[in-house]
Amino acid sequence: MSNNIKDTIFIGKKPLMTYVTSAIIQLATMPLIKIKARGLSIAHAVDVAQIVLQRTNPAFVIGDVKIDSESLESQDGRTRNVSTIEISIKKRAA
Amino acid sequence: MSNNIKDTIFIGKKPLMTYVTSAIIQLATMPLIKIKARGLSIAHAVDVAQIVLQRTNPAFVIGDVKIDSESLESQDGRTRNVSTIEISIKKRAA
Repeated sequence: MSNNIKDTIFIGKKPLMTYVTSAIIQLATMPLIKIKARGLSIAHAVDVAQIVLQRTNPAFVIGDVKIDSESLESQDGRTRNVSTIEISIKKRAA
Repeated sequence: MSNNIKDTIFIGKKPLMTYVTSAIIQLATMPLIKIKARGLSIAHAVDVAQIVLQRTNPAFVIGDVKIDSESLESQDGRTRNVSTIEISIKKRAA
């Protein structure tokens, strides 16, 4: 992998502010970060992005927002599709 | 409003396939539709968009995806921010 994994934050079940803090720390040293989530966590990914923007206003903006779906095998062995989102946050152009 | 409201589908609490069907019907006559949602329904909006793409594959693609937040007054009178998403679906370029 040529991509540094550290520029991506995966949203899970932790409190929102955990991810907000990680994102702001990473934005201090990186030009662009990605917030990824799948399934119901997608709504939380959008929340995290919005809170980061608010807290750091007006330093950063939302870049690309990509949505997609992944095939996962569920516990009963069937294949299920789950939606995913990837939100980029980057420095506001001067 | 110059915008025809019919090109926008708001995702709420109905079964997903209700919105999928509406979207596919609208895409039959319109070049572009928008799927909007806020709060936890955001994850369902992404699901609806992905199912529409799958069912109509390869006729349509995702266009712009915008995320934002709105201020709402909650029942106790305080202002809360709620995240929003707007997903465009359009015809695949020939």
